[in-house]
Amino acid sequence: MNDIDYMNLALTLAESAEGRTSPNPMVGAVIVKNQQIIGMGAHLKAGTEHAEIHALNMAGSAAHGSTMYVTLEPCNHFGKTPPCTQRIIQEGVRKVYIATLDPNPLVSGRGVAALQEAGIEVVVGLLAEKSMKMNEIFNKYVVSKIPYIVLKAAITLDGKIASKSGDSKWITNELSRNKVHQLRNQLDAILVGVNTVSYDDPMLTTRLGEGGRNPIRVILDSHLTIQEDAQVLDTDIAPTLIICTEQRDHEKEQRLLERGIQIIIAKSQDGQVDLRDCLIQLGARGITSILVEGGSRTHGSFLRQQLFDKLVLFIAPKIIGGNDAISVFGGSSFPSMKQAIELKNIETRHYGEDLCIIGYPNYITDVQEG
Amino acid sequence: MNDIDYMNLALTLAESAEGRTSPNPMVGAVIVKNQQIIGMGAHLKAGTEHAEIHALNMAGSAAHGSTMYVTLEPCNHFGKTPPCTQRIIQEGVRKVYIATLDPNPLVSGRGVAALQEAGIEVVVGLLAEKSMKMNEIFNKYVVSKIPYIVLKAAITLDGKIASKSGDSKWITNELSRNKVHQLRNQLDAILVGVNTVSYDDPMLTTRLGEGGRNPIRVILDSHLTIQEDAQVLDTDIAPTLIICTEQRDHEKEQRLLERGIQIIIAKSQDGQVDLRDCLIQLGARGITSILVEGGSRTHGSFLRQQLFDKLVLFIAPKIIGGNDAISVFGGSSFPSMKQAIELKNIETRHYGEDLCIIGYPNYITDVQEG
Amino acid sequence: MNDIDYMNLALTLAESAEGRTSPNPMVGAVIVKNQQIIGMGAHLKAGTEHAEIHALNMAGSAAHGSTMYVTLEPCNHFGKTPPCTQRIIQEGVRKVYIATLDPNPLVSGRGVAALQEAGIEVVVGLLAEKSMKMNEIFNKYVVSKIPYIVLKAAITLDGKIASKSGDSKWITNELSRNKVHQLRNQLDAILVGVNTVSYDDPMLTTRLGEGGRNPIRVILDSHLTIQEDAQVLDTDIAPTLIICTEQRDHEKEQRLLERGIQIIIAKSQDGQVDLRDCLIQLGARGITSILVEGGSRTHGSFLRQQLFDKLVLFIAPKIIGGNDAISVFGGSSFPSMKQAIELKNIETRHYGEDLCIIGYPNYITDVQEG
Amino acid sequence: MNDIDYMNLALTLAESAEGRTSPNPMVGAVIVKNQQIIGMGAHLKAGTEHAEIHALNMAGSAAHGSTMYVTLEPCNHFGKTPPCTQRIIQEGVRKVYIATLDPNPLVSGRGVAALQEAGIEVVVGLLAEKSMKMNEIFNKYVVSKIPYIVLKAAITLDGKIASKSGDSKWITNELSRNKVHQLRNQLDAILVGVNTVSYDDPMLTTRLGEGGRNPIRVILDSHLTIQEDAQVLDTDIAPTLIICTEQRDHEKEQRLLERGIQIIIAKSQDGQVDLRDCLIQLGARGITSILVEGGSRTHGSFLRQQLFDKLVLFIAPKIIGGNDAISVFGGSSFPSMKQAIELKNIETRHYGEDLCIIGYPNYITDVQEG
Ligand SMILES: [Zn+2]
Ligand SMILES: [Zn+2]
Ligand SMILES: [Zn+2]
Ligand SMILES: [Zn+2]
Repeated sequence: MNDIDYMNLALTLAESAEGRTSPNPMVGAVIVKNQQIIGMGAHLKAGTEHAEIHALNMAGSAAHGSTMYVTLEPCNHFGKTPPCTQRIIQEGVRKVYIATLDPNPLVSGRGVAALQEAGIEVVVGLLAEKSMKMNEIFNKYVVSKIPYIVLKAAITLDGKIASKSGDSKWITNELSRNKVHQLRNQLDAILVGVNTVSYDDPMLTTRLGEGGRNPIRVILDSHLTIQEDAQVLDTDIAPTLIICTEQRDHEKEQRLLERGIQIIIAKSQDGQVDLRDCLIQLGARGITSILVEGGSRTHGSFLRQQLFDKLVLFIAPKIIGGNDAISVFGGSSFPSMKQAIELKNIETRHYGEDLCIIGYPNYITDVQEG
Repeated sequence: MNDIDYMNLALTLAESAEGRTSPNPMVGAVIVKNQQIIGMGAHLKAGTEHAEIHALNMAGSAAHGSTMYVTLEPCNHFGKTPPCTQRIIQEGVRKVYIATLDPNPLVSGRGVAALQEAGIEVVVGLLAEKSMKMNEIFNKYVVSKIPYIVLKAAITLDGKIASKSGDSKWITNELSRNKVHQLRNQLDAILVGVNTVSYDDPMLTTRLGEGGRNPIRVILDSHLTIQEDAQVLDTDIAPTLIICTEQRDHEKEQRLLERGIQIIIAKSQDGQVDLRDCLIQLGARGITSILVEGGSRTHGSFLRQQLFDKLVLFIAPKIIGGNDAISVFGGSSFPSMKQAIELKNIETRHYGEDLCIIGYPNYITDVQEG
Repeated sequence: MNDIDYMNLALTLAESAEGRTSPNPMVGAVIVKNQQIIGMGAHLKAGTEHAEIHALNMAGSAAHGSTMYVTLEPCNHFGKTPPCTQRIIQEGVRKVYIATLDPNPLVSGRGVAALQEAGIEVVVGLLAEKSMKMNEIFNKYVVSKIPYIVLKAAITLDGKIASKSGDSKWITNELSRNKVHQLRNQLDAILVGVNTVSYDDPMLTTRLGEGGRNPIRVILDSHLTIQEDAQVLDTDIAPTLIICTEQRDHEKEQRLLERGIQIIIAKSQDGQVDLRDCLIQLGARGITSILVEGGSRTHGSFLRQQLFDKLVLFIAPKIIGGNDAISVFGGSSFPSMKQAIELKNIETRHYGEDLCIIGYPNYITDVQEG
Repeated sequence: MNDIDYMNLALTLAESAEGRTSPNPMVGAVIVKNQQIIGMGAHLKAGTEHAEIHALNMAGSAAHGSTMYVTLEPCNHFGKTPPCTQRIIQEGVRKVYIATLDPNPLVSGRGVAALQEAGIEVVVGLLAEKSMKMNEIFNKYVVSKIPYIVLKAAITLDGKIASKSGDSKWITNELSRNKVHQLRNQLDAILVGVNTVSYDDPMLTTRLGEGGRNPIRVILDSHLTIQEDAQVLDTDIAPTLIICTEQRDHEKEQRLLERGIQIIIAKSQDGQVDLRDCLIQLGARGITSILVEGGSRTHGSFLRQQLFDKLVLFIAPKIIGGNDAISVFGGSSFPSMKQAIELKNIETRHYGEDLCIIGYPNYITDVQEG
């Protein structure tokens, strides 16, 4: 094994905790001495040891004179745990390979500096691209405190999410739908508009063969019109949070609060929830990532306000036809084709006969909600 | 080379004339004697020799005692040329491998019978599937006298062919657009609705690096409202045919006829051209295949009336958004998702970042225009 | 279809006669006018029409103003047939694409000159590499009059063609052995040493499911020691030719001649047939290609004298072991590893568990038989 | 992540210590609770903690009620460390997935029984095949106490490892030679015959870009004829062990012992070292795996006595020719082709132009040294 192999192993260790470290990043560490791995670790869950500490614990006194491979710059500040740099120095590690610096501009580079001051050789940048991609959620959130938004939809070939009557069961096949549950399993929250709750009465839980973790369920409901018998309001299964504006029914709010539903009052824009304010408030509550699952109006708003970071589109090979079926992005279209949002870094997957397109929006112009 | 190799060569020869043999099928023939090819041929153009005759001409007297591999049952009737069976018998061919029987039920099997009566050994079915697929246009037309309909569209990821203002330039990239010109080069006719002429003023010609053949341009224009300065009315480049109903302006019709435009009066249905009647009349004029290029209303009508045979959808990785942008299939949607038309035998291609989905509609229920 | 497509079709046509055109090259031709193929042809067998003539015959008078794609420079001399250039000019072809010039330095370029003098536009070099590779046999023979030598062997992983007792049945599997029959089917002659006849008593015929053509069988037998009941002497199946030196038994020679065996007296070198003289004499008889099938001594002589052009080695995943098993190349080895003959343009194929290595020797130094 | 994902991660952890755990197996463990990994570990080096312990240490008290995925049955006996089963039970693990049982028949199944008696649910067999393949060395050694033998050679296409003069530099390219150093890095010992020492004077060390571990060097030298200035006798670099018979020069033995060379007196067979006895003695010294690197005679002996477990053959695309060049397997060949040793589970790799064939001998008959 060479340097690249060791850092790849550290990345594998880090990824093993995907969807489990929020609001922290995934991090992995490997310690090597005399061509022999002597310690390995990953950050497994917020509040628990960092990857470096697990690896150093495993290595014990053998860490003296060793080389560490760590996927993110070691922390140099007291958080829920003491700084990793201090422990690395104490244990006598001789050289540290780091994939990427801490994305937080307030601390970025400090870990490296602390190690170097202690006489440790530091090499930054080994497999940096893989490490950056792995922590795309954290890298946004730590800087902006706004959650990373993954917009997901299941559509027909002609871009519809339901017939004119609202029927959408089922557009995509079981393999695609299972993949959605894997996404839910990875992200902190699911967000839908209240119309979707009205039409489909979904549970918005993670249904995987082996269980899975339920993210918090967020409902956009400007005027608090949600039916009180909606399944999503059953908080025995998972927590639920409703975002409304000042124009809500106070008595209904009270009843919901008593049932354990969380309620956020967001600014309003044209009588609707102001999405940016909504995301800021969700971010403030420690939600680092959201899967936006519709419906049409909600998707349209995220599109026009350029608020999503990643698109996951499941396309079934069928045609519902019609101008009146429900388009995946509702509301107003961009006036000209040149203003259409292009995707970059596109990946195409096949789930049975369904296609899945994953891409990142290439926002260029400052298009405002029309 | 073995039997399969020889029949594959015959198929290659046949396909070399793709888009050139209408209204005839593509056919190829190879003649072999003592493990030596002695003749090869393809049907190159309607009105010229059949594949078997070219191959026998090349073989000359050596054809005596040979084996022929031909992709379609040899004809047994006098058409523009004498029956091929007669010539095969005359030349003393000993054995004939045929990929598929003639799809025309009136004559299917007669060629085989004639050869067998003359003592020739006949084997039918070698590479039959490939031969059937190659002549999908002919196989429909010869039986139904209705053209084979390929519906083509270029859409955004959200299923739109234009912004609400009608802007559609350009959704797809150059590679995709070039592929459309290759399709035009292969089919007998291009069909668009008059709205597309109004919006885009297209020429509807084949623009390939090395020239290419222009199909006849067909405009659906129930009330003959086409602008008289539309580019598509310039018949110096390619022939143009307008389909309208009895409710047309007779003077305008006269002016168009004088300019060399062909005009068909189709039955009307709810004030619009009756599409089935339209296709019957086009078929009667010897048009075996049509590329339907839009717009939204036209595609919607072909969908609801279940009139297209094949779909070629170019999908660009961009989002125009909005309910008000123009959907690829206009008009009314099917009421429920179960009624959506599924595609079968789907093929996915990549042209740069664009996707191309090719499939065949799986019409099951008898859905009527709603 | 574009220029490359048409030339590829011409190459496909040419290759359809692989192994059937000797001593002529494979040649294919396609004639195109107005984006429509109007003629196709290949040279099918020595003494019959050239590719261009077949294609022009098919095109008929439509050839006037057309473009021809031909894989080899058209001939400009009277051979068994009149010059193709003359016919091309007569028919009014407007432009000719040629893949490669005639490799024969005596006539190379004359066809092009004749066409250009007649005002025809000529483009040379389209898909030249594929055309050169296709006619590798012809390209050597036409220049040197020495046959193209393909050395073939079936070996164990440890490079042996038989156990010490001479047992070699079977090293390779059926798929590999079938491939050998395909090689026999393509080349003019098979050559083995008399020891191989003694040990294995092979028939050296082409056994393919559908028959196949038997090449002439050539036996290297310096002192005419062949057993007279050897199967290879049965000329009912295929012709047989023995190469010996002046030191042969005249009576035995006479008996063999009476049985229809051909006999060549080659120069001798150290009491053995001089291989170069042997190849010159075989070339003089119109043999353009030879499959050398062993045994060990024969292969060793071709190696040390650098006389083979291509190696086809079937390697079975088994080990017979021992210094005393029979090595694929007998006789003396090169003194140092640097003198080993390297292969270039190597291709690896899998036939079941067997490997097949195809390569071309990279003769650099002038190594003499040691 | 599901059960298979977790076990695959455990296998990845295990493999990260490849070549470092001898004489112990590679083992990895992952602990999961509520869809969250809470512990990970691998056995990194003999004498240090087992994989389960590392993983439990990382999990801490959270291990209570968790599920463990471990690639090998946990130990139930006191070795250098206390039994892992005891600790697993103490920590309150609820369920254990095991890839394979302990291959040692004396203890196999005891770990499972101990866990089950403590009320832990046990599932055996998840990814068993991958786990078995990973520990092919251990699985043989633990049962037989005889080292796992990998026979490696670099040969020409014609199966030679050197010219008649013994020249072998270099047959294969740098990529292949680097791969050999990776093999040395993984196995406990390298073994060569004394002739190879005489001809090539090799160092037999691991030369990798980043260092690497040197295995013990074993020389087969029945009569202790090794030159005393051979590089392999420099024990500053790596330990060296010579195997000879009673017929050795006692004074020379003494001199070598004084230099720190280890010497084993093996039984003799026909005046040579008895290989089986040799392997038994090496196994008794804790050597679990040996890379046999030649030369010809040594390879021949391992072949005829059916003593190697795996073959790694690097084949360069060159021909040295000749019966007199040195064959990869020396000595006597098997009498007939049917007795040749076939390889199974063959894998083919490409290192530049070199081929590498990896396979396992399919010993069937009881062939004795002839
Ligand atoms: Zn830290
Ligand atoms: Zn016909
Ligand atoms: Zn010619
Ligand atoms: Zn243990």
